Amino acid sequence: MTDLFWPGDHRAGPVMSEAALLGALVAAENAWLATLVAAGVAPWAAATELGTLVGRADLEEIAAGAERDGNPVTGLVALLRSRACVETARWLHRGLTSQDVLDTALMLCLRDALAAVRRDLTTQVRLLVELIETHRAAPMLTHTLTQPALPGTAGRKFAIWLAAVLDAGDTLNAVPAPAVSAGGAAGTLAATTELTGSAQTALQLAEQWAAALGLAPAAPWHTTRSPVTRAGDALVGCCDAWGHIANDIAAGIRTGELAEGSGGGSSTMPHKNNPVLTVLLRRAALTAPPLGATLHSASAASVDERADGGWHAEWATLAILARRTVVAGSQATELLTDLRFDPASAAANQAAAQGIYDEQQAMSTLAGKPPAPDYLGATEALVDIAVQRAHQYLKETS
Amino acid sequence: MTDLFWPGDHRAGPVMSEAALLGALVAAENAWLATLVAAGVAPWAAATELGTLVGRADLEEIAAGAERDGNPVTGLVALLRSRACVETARWLHRGLTSQDVLDTALMLCLRDALAAVRRDLTTQVRLLVELIETHRAAPMLTHTLTQPALPGTAGRKFAIWLAAVLDAGDTLNAVPAPAVSAGGAAGTLAATTELTGSAQTALQLAEQWAAALGLAPAAPWHTTRSPVTRAGDALVGCCDAWGHIANDIAAGIRTGELAEGSGGGSSTMPHKNNPVLTVLLRRAALTAPPLGATLHSASAASVDERADGGWHAEWATLAILARRTVVAGSQATELLTDLRFDPASAAANQAAAQGIYDEQQAMSTLAGKPPAPDYLGATEALVDIAVQRAHQYLKETS
Amino acid sequence: MTDLFWPGDHRAGPVMSEAALLGALVAAENAWLATLVAAGVAPWAAATELGTLVGRADLEEIAAGAERDGNPVTGLVALLRSRACVETARWLHRGLTSQDVLDTALMLCLRDALAAVRRDLTTQVRLLVELIETHRAAPMLTHTLTQPALPGTAGRKFAIWLAAVLDAGDTLNAVPAPAVSAGGAAGTLAATTELTGSAQTALQLAEQWAAALGLAPAAPWHTTRSPVTRAGDALVGCCDAWGHIANDIAAGIRTGELAEGSGGGSSTMPHKNNPVLTVLLRRAALTAPPLGATLHSASAASVDERADGGWHAEWATLAILARRTVVAGSQATELLTDLRFDPASAAANQAAAQGIYDEQQAMSTLAGKPPAPDYLGATEALVDIAVQRAHQYLKETS
Amino acid sequence: MTDLFWPGDHRAGPVMSEAALLGALVAAENAWLATLVAAGVAPWAAATELGTLVGRADLEEIAAGAERDGNPVTGLVALLRSRACVETARWLHRGLTSQDVLDTALMLCLRDALAAVRRDLTTQVRLLVELIETHRAAPMLTHTLTQPALPGTAGRKFAIWLAAVLDAGDTLNAVPAPAVSAGGAAGTLAATTELTGSAQTALQLAEQWAAALGLAPAAPWHTTRSPVTRAGDALVGCCDAWGHIANDIAAGIRTGELAEGSGGGSSTMPHKNNPVLTVLLRRAALTAPPLGATLHSASAASVDERADGGWHAEWATLAILARRTVVAGSQATELLTDLRFDPASAAANQAAAQGIYDEQQAMSTLAGKPPAPDYLGATEALVDIAVQRAHQYLKETS
Repeated sequence: MTDLFWPGDHRAGPVMSEAALLGALVAAENAWLATLVAAGVAPWAAATELGTLVGRADLEEIAAGAERDGNPVTGLVALLRSRACVETARWLHRGLTSQDVLDTALMLCLRDALAAVRRDLTTQVRLLVELIETHRAAPMLTHTLTQPALPGTAGRKFAIWLAAVLDAGDTLNAVPAPAVSAGGAAGTLAATTELTGSAQTALQLAEQWAAALGLAPAAPWHTTRSPVTRAGDALVGCCDAWGHIANDIAAGIRTGELAEGSGGGSSTMPHKNNPVLTVLLRRAALTAPPLGATLHSASAASVDERADGGWHAEWATLAILARRTVVAGSQATELLTDLRFDPASAAANQAAAQGIYDEQQAMSTLAGKPPAPDYLGATEALVDIAVQRAHQYLKETS
Repeated sequence: MTDLFWPGDHRAGPVMSEAALLGALVAAENAWLATLVAAGVAPWAAATELGTLVGRADLEEIAAGAERDGNPVTGLVALLRSRACVETARWLHRGLTSQDVLDTALMLCLRDALAAVRRDLTTQVRLLVELIETHRAAPMLTHTLTQPALPGTAGRKFAIWLAAVLDAGDTLNAVPAPAVSAGGAAGTLAATTELTGSAQTALQLAEQWAAALGLAPAAPWHTTRSPVTRAGDALVGCCDAWGHIANDIAAGIRTGELAEGSGGGSSTMPHKNNPVLTVLLRRAALTAPPLGATLHSASAASVDERADGGWHAEWATLAILARRTVVAGSQATELLTDLRFDPASAAANQAAAQGIYDEQQAMSTLAGKPPAPDYLGATEALVDIAVQRAHQYLKETS
Repeated sequence: MTDLFWPGDHRAGPVMSEAALLGALVAAENAWLATLVAAGVAPWAAATELGTLVGRADLEEIAAGAERDGNPVTGLVALLRSRACVETARWLHRGLTSQDVLDTALMLCLRDALAAVRRDLTTQVRLLVELIETHRAAPMLTHTLTQPALPGTAGRKFAIWLAAVLDAGDTLNAVPAPAVSAGGAAGTLAATTELTGSAQTALQLAEQWAAALGLAPAAPWHTTRSPVTRAGDALVGCCDAWGHIANDIAAGIRTGELAEGSGGGSSTMPHKNNPVLTVLLRRAALTAPPLGATLHSASAASVDERADGGWHAEWATLAILARRTVVAGSQATELLTDLRFDPASAAANQAAAQGIYDEQQAMSTLAGKPPAPDYLGATEALVDIAVQRAHQYLKETS
Repeated sequence: MTDLFWPGDHRAGPVMSEAALLGALVAAENAWLATLVAAGVAPWAAATELGTLVGRADLEEIAAGAERDGNPVTGLVALLRSRACVETARWLHRGLTSQDVLDTALMLCLRDALAAVRRDLTTQVRLLVELIETHRAAPMLTHTLTQPALPGTAGRKFAIWLAAVLDAGDTLNAVPAPAVSAGGAAGTLAATTELTGSAQTALQLAEQWAAALGLAPAAPWHTTRSPVTRAGDALVGCCDAWGHIANDIAAGIRTGELAEGSGGGSSTMPHKNNPVLTVLLRRAALTAPPLGATLHSASAASVDERADGGWHAEWATLAILARRTVVAGSQATELLTDLRFDPASAAANQAAAQGIYDEQQAMSTLAGKPPAPDYLGATEALVDIAVQRAHQYLKETS
């Protein structure tokens, strides 16, 4: 997987790709069929491994056919039926509606994307703790509203980034686990109930399906889309955090205090070392929030028992957002892994700054005491707080 | 408070209004001064009630002056100092930076907005449980992709809305409690540390300040803005839920199954009964997601120790989003309170629908059994699940 | 008019304020009544000056009452009728629907906002031409992807800004002139036709109304909202241009080459000179695009002969966007008026840059010629092109 | 080209695809090389057809390598050089920077997308004129705020859609023609000037390049991005128009007055005829505005002589928006081609509506005349105006 329009796309590998979605759709149908068979609803003769019947070679045909029915599931089911034995063809998909299968498949893909992002966040927490340990006391001028403000340390700068990453991780971890959607045509499990003769059995089948797929069970959520918006918001929150860090790195590159480990070349200027990862992270942060907003608009467009466009707006939006976030997570990890901090340059910049002790002078006069030997305030304690939070995070998430 | 551009704005009363912000700014300064005095940092002579020194009459001057310094705090502090006794003037605001005061004041206002929204969500949960109890078994045709789908019940329709409201409530309740921001000029508590002679004391003052204001304590979050984006996302999620319900009501009004208790008149057509609350809720749902996205973009624009525009973009955006959500919450409560469901019309519509038992026929043939007496599937069980979730929610949130 | 949440708001004065909208609503009703009287549809006894009947003191009541009918017009008409003589009460508003009056009033307000923005753009074109003339040849290092690139001039930097402002101006000038909306209840002019006995007369009344208000005539556009989205997009485009300039100024402030004429103070750091206008312009640029998107979403939500929420989402969104753009325009003018460029600092920065002639060396080797005396390329010609475009713009728009 | 996440994607064929971008990148480099050779800057030995050197088989490698330099051009140029003869390798790309090539290639792709959209708009104008002619006088009830309003005609309904399409077309036709970007590393044409020995020659080469590619000439626009935002806004405007039409069709399907020529099947309900194109158009309209907003945010993030992330955010965003608009345009054409209007159903609905002549009664009383035989007002004249506008549009655009 690559995308000429989105450098770095290959970092996400198959996550949230078309192939992954197709695989997830088949996996969802396959697990449902197995559930029907295991429950004795469908006969043993219907049992088969659907994953052997379709594959990547069918992707284009299924995708092109998806417009006929408004989604790819109907065509996929027809293709599976055309290739399966009679009993399998008769029983597969029975009880489900296309939205069940697509929503569940999206959640399978989302689960992988969230896992990838979580792994990168955890690595970044470790990297930032290391950066703090290495450069903790190094002088590094603070800036506010673009202007030199007070004396600071590299440890505090990295601790701020750490807090940003931890906030993103906490937000992500608060997202409910991806869940199946099993409601049938109108979200009432009517077909499964008809097939099994019991509503309770139908609900149990839905739970067994979830268990087989490793997803959470859930009441049908055809038109209550917070499972999508909450995940989307958390992914945007990750991009926010990396965008913030990239802004700081870009500013640090301008002052010579920071550098990317290995930047990109210029097509024409041999002397340049472009901060490519920084720039590409800023790109991700610029584009993520409107994608999150689209998921909300789609959710708010829910109507009836299954929606007339809102649902359809989610698929590509969620996929693009999730995939880009996975890419950005990987880029942020590499950026932090190779980041170079130049203590001499940072120290020189702080030493050259005007007026950064004026406030201290005013405060010491006010307090009627001589100025303290430094003006770092609670910097050390705040760094400790961030590092302790990091250790707690690592303990809880590993 | 009213807004000619946003009918219904008065429902939010003072919540997140300019007057509320001014009051919160003064409250924040006042509590900080009291904290300094109580800790023996400032002398007893500095103690005063700052709320007596400025008021709504000063609002316009402070607002107009806010551009000079980029935010209203500097001007407010100057005004307070000009009106306070010498010791108060000397000590107020010492240790804080304008962003501390403004962020903390916004959190005070946000707390009130969140509380108002939570109250409405709780009321709506109760109203929906009542609607379910009243009309539980009434036939009500389901629709998918605008088309008649399967037989349904009014109980299930209201249970879907209930799930939407509960999801919104759960999301809102997962938002971390609004917290103070106390970092001083560069987020290091340098000034407070200088005044108190101890970083630990400075951190304790920040905690005491939080306690006095009824906010959560927190490490400074000048450039880590998830406290804002998480609240924003949850507010948008509420508007999504009400937008979804409003879409369903609009659709039900078109078919004659639902009606607003008392709609608005037409300026020219005497026969019309416009579904005003429905329409205004759809309005809120259309405008909320981009506001939430703006908060993310602002968060992602964080840079340095205090940002150069991202922060400034948050204030009005959060205020507008929060206030509109409070208004929408109140409108949704009224809409659900007075909603009229016409069982006869709904029953007639379902009876007239073509083909809604075709799927049952296919399933019963497949199962080799005669069709069940109804085709409602797990409707009753799903309604029960929603109602039980509602009772749990009410127990936990009251 | 001020807004504690939006420093600088007072710069827009009454433009797009609630008071302006109320005035415009009354003006629209007034001109329509006069049109009916002049055409002999309404009797002379109905003629009156409606502006004498309501005023700012009625604003709050009308705004609060607007929710009853979903918009403020019905309440305004009722209030006018309650205060007018019998014949006036009988005839005012006849033929119009509330959307006609509100859309037309918004267009009156928009016209004023567009005019204010155009004035500022024109002034900025002049200011930038002056800046170019003053500093044309001053060395000023170029940067790409945050890195020093090639030698440049201040003239070229200002010419880029000039092109941005001219693009914004051209886009704004391509927006169709604000037009009345006169369609009656269902956009068919049925009531006016009934009153006048002739569809042609009804259409003529609509044209006369437009002429009286100084707006363009138009077929009813109740659900075809490009008049709103095109204006919105152009306003966003202005904010883009100023945001870009503000980014460059922020970068220039960081390197010491640029400074705001008079920045804002810090509430705690006496040495700071915060680039307030720069920061506030960045704020405007961060918040404008999602507002423009909301106008599109609202437009796309058009349905039936008058929409069920999309229309209502426009009013505040357009007002906020327009007002903020007027504010930003004024701030950008002031920023450019007082901008300080430090030629010595810029020259020193360029002199200190590494490798900025490497590309020239490579090119001259390739061309087999000694390097030219400078490496500014077509800088002078490009500046000339921008200046000539500016002169053409000033000629056409004044 | 298909997209499993976006049913209908195949309708756009290669337009704005990765393959199209690669082809356009090569075409841009090829034309520039030819321009250098033709001008005598590069030797005849350098002349070659670059399109023979790379192709779709190289797409993945170039895309994966694009992250190294932050864009795909540097890698493409390296690949071309590795496969070209010495003189070609020496001269290709000389004078350009990667942004020149990528921006120009995007404009080539955009030109094709705009052309496709324009063709569909023109077809839709014709189709709507036909629909008007066929059903002009058929009764069709109007609705406002979801409620029955006044009597209407199908001709007027289709004329409203026609106006929406014409507005979209006018907006699109007001977009400046896609232009080359030829500025070199810092937008000053320094390298080309060095190679040619003359700034005027450098500027002429840029014009010749534009002519060779069929694009408009332009001063470099590396950081003045209105060429992108204006196109984006116009594309969003098209989606708005089709979204509006789709909303009306969805409403008409609910009332039985309209039907898609051939809807999609349900994966489980045999009786259903899902209005797939309608639903997919609503999808497009929900997702387009935030993409347009992203282009503005990216434009507003311009800084320096080439931006540090804003530019990179544009590529995929513009591609997705443009491609989806092409798809939606094709779907809208098909929808209008096959749309079925049921005059009997529409007439019955209007006949059953309550109170739709009440306003007429009030107006005729007011006017002191008996009611006119119908209450269609200026419907006929308004339809004529739309049709005349259509004929004018067709004359001007064909």
